[in-house]
Amino acid sequence: MTVIMEKSSPLAIAHLGPPGTYAEQAAFFYLNWLKKTQAVKATLCAYPTIAQSLQAVATQQAQLAVVPVENSIEGSVTMTMDTLWQLETLQIQLALVLPISHTLISCADNLESIETVYSHPQALAQCQGWLRQFLPNVNLIPSNSTTEALQGLKQEVKTAAIASSRAAQLYNLPILATGINDYPDNCTRFWVISHSQGDAGDQISSRAIAFGTALRAIAPTHTSIAFSLPANVPGALAKALQVFAHLGINLSRIESRPTKRSLGEYLFFIDIETSATQVQTALSELRDYTEILKFFGSYSVTLIDNS
Amino acid sequence: MTVIMEKSSPLAIAHLGPPGTYAEQAAFFYLNWLKKTQAVKATLCAYPTIAQSLQAVATQQAQLAVVPVENSIEGSVTMTMDTLWQLETLQIQLALVLPISHTLISCADNLESIETVYSHPQALAQCQGWLRQFLPNVNLIPSNSTTEALQGLKQEVKTAAIASSRAAQLYNLPILATGINDYPDNCTRFWVISHSQGDAGDQISSRAIAFGTALRAIAPTHTSIAFSLPANVPGALAKALQVFAHLGINLSRIESRPTKRSLGEYLFFIDIETSATQVQTALSELRDYTEILKFFGSYSVTLIDNS
Repeated sequence: MTVIMEKSSPLAIAHLGPPGTYAEQAAFFYLNWLKKTQAVKATLCAYPTIAQSLQAVATQQAQLAVVPVENSIEGSVTMTMDTLWQLETLQIQLALVLPISHTLISCADNLESIETVYSHPQALAQCQGWLRQFLPNVNLIPSNSTTEALQGLKQEVKTAAIASSRAAQLYNLPILATGINDYPDNCTRFWVISHSQGDAGDQISSRAIAFGTALRAIAPTHTSIAFSLPANVPGALAKALQVFAHLGINLSRIESRPTKRSLGEYLFFIDIETSATQVQTALSELRDYTEILKFFGSYSVTLIDNS
Repeated sequence: MTVIMEKSSPLAIAHLGPPGTYAEQAAFFYLNWLKKTQAVKATLCAYPTIAQSLQAVATQQAQLAVVPVENSIEGSVTMTMDTLWQLETLQIQLALVLPISHTLISCADNLESIETVYSHPQALAQCQGWLRQFLPNVNLIPSNSTTEALQGLKQEVKTAAIASSRAAQLYNLPILATGINDYPDNCTRFWVISHSQGDAGDQISSRAIAFGTALRAIAPTHTSIAFSLPANVPGALAKALQVFAHLGINLSRIESRPTKRSLGEYLFFIDIETSATQVQTALSELRDYTEILKFFGSYSVTLIDNS
């Protein structure tokens, strides 16, 4: 596979910031992969929310975004799904699976002196058993990201934060305990997202599209779609899922989200494991049973080895 | 319908605290309903997390818990589902639907002087459009509950919080803006949960069970179940859902949660609309297609009128 790309300005990769979040870790892995295997230069651009990192690609301020999709313990990242449904022009290029290992970061001498622990709510939830056992009396305070939780740690010795060991290194902070997640098989799946339509006048954009085409050529194994169902049709979801069952297609994920119209109305986000040819058959049959049907892309899955 | 209950010590109703949360508002409505229609005395007991309020019922420290299940905009409350799956002895008695109207609470003279807004992440998410329009440059800081966000407001005039008007009243704080949620049809569904098995020696527990029986006598319209599926069976979910489709049973909700074993393995939480007799048929057929099947109860749904 040979893709000719212009080497001028680097590709911008948007992610949830600041540096040291797990999203940045996945984006950083991807940046290195681009450099090594595709000889493509890229830079990381941190955004305050997942929605803003996806909007940056939709408005072509960035060429790619790396966003979390689901965690094996805490489940779906709803903001990613809701934003992807709203924005019309985005496409999944690749899935990255990052093993998650939380560490307790603090300037305290020992666990006994810690009174407060800060972290992102998902990280606090993923360590709740460990916290109950080793820090049963501390205050747990949510923060916007695992990295934000590190702010002020140097000034405050009775305080700790839960984040990655990479974050501790980046901010030069001591680690008090490692591998504190309750479930050792903890990993988060990310999607690498590009714009779905290139603007011919925009070199960077067309480079990103060419690059997307190169990535898709790596035998896509998964396809992601979402749909809403016609109202008040009993068995509507079963009928839609029967399409996949009849074709022998395995669902690797199903997730419902509220339509935001009224309680009890849902959108369904589905990942299927299948070849590109079967996808077309499935989608054309599915149109008969769905109200709105969106195709987010076919892509392959890569495990990030951060050992 | 006549239920004889002993009037000694009041029933304890557990909820996510502190007072002023939407969970407390739903629990407070329920307490008044108990008093008026059943002549049953009850007290509210605030717990720091949803999981702890459910555990209080499982360990019979409280007779009932009122817990949020899903919001029409932000979707499921995952902690409620995960805890319900883990604890074996809980049963849903009733669903309560509470219309949600967020207010901006602050001691500031006007919007211009506000620099920081605190609230629970779901409330911040539900008002993101309003915040972008009227307070585009403020810092948004997550808190553990909408009520916790009110702490310190009296001392800090550049700060605001998003919570209910009931919370503003309870803590004697001024309201700067009302109805700031982006979607007017915003409501949250709660479940009233009891212990599923009474201890004969425990008067309070047997009262709660008798009371649960009284509630179930109010024509149940909904049933909630959850199941895991046998591994590596393509179409396993479609087969399970076909059971409902064949019986003409409507699904009012389907939600997947990770099994926490490995990425891509899910539990399914399903609410169905059906009579009690059909439930038995559906459950016995469903056993053939599921791995673990749990029944959480059949119950009716009540809309809370807080106008």
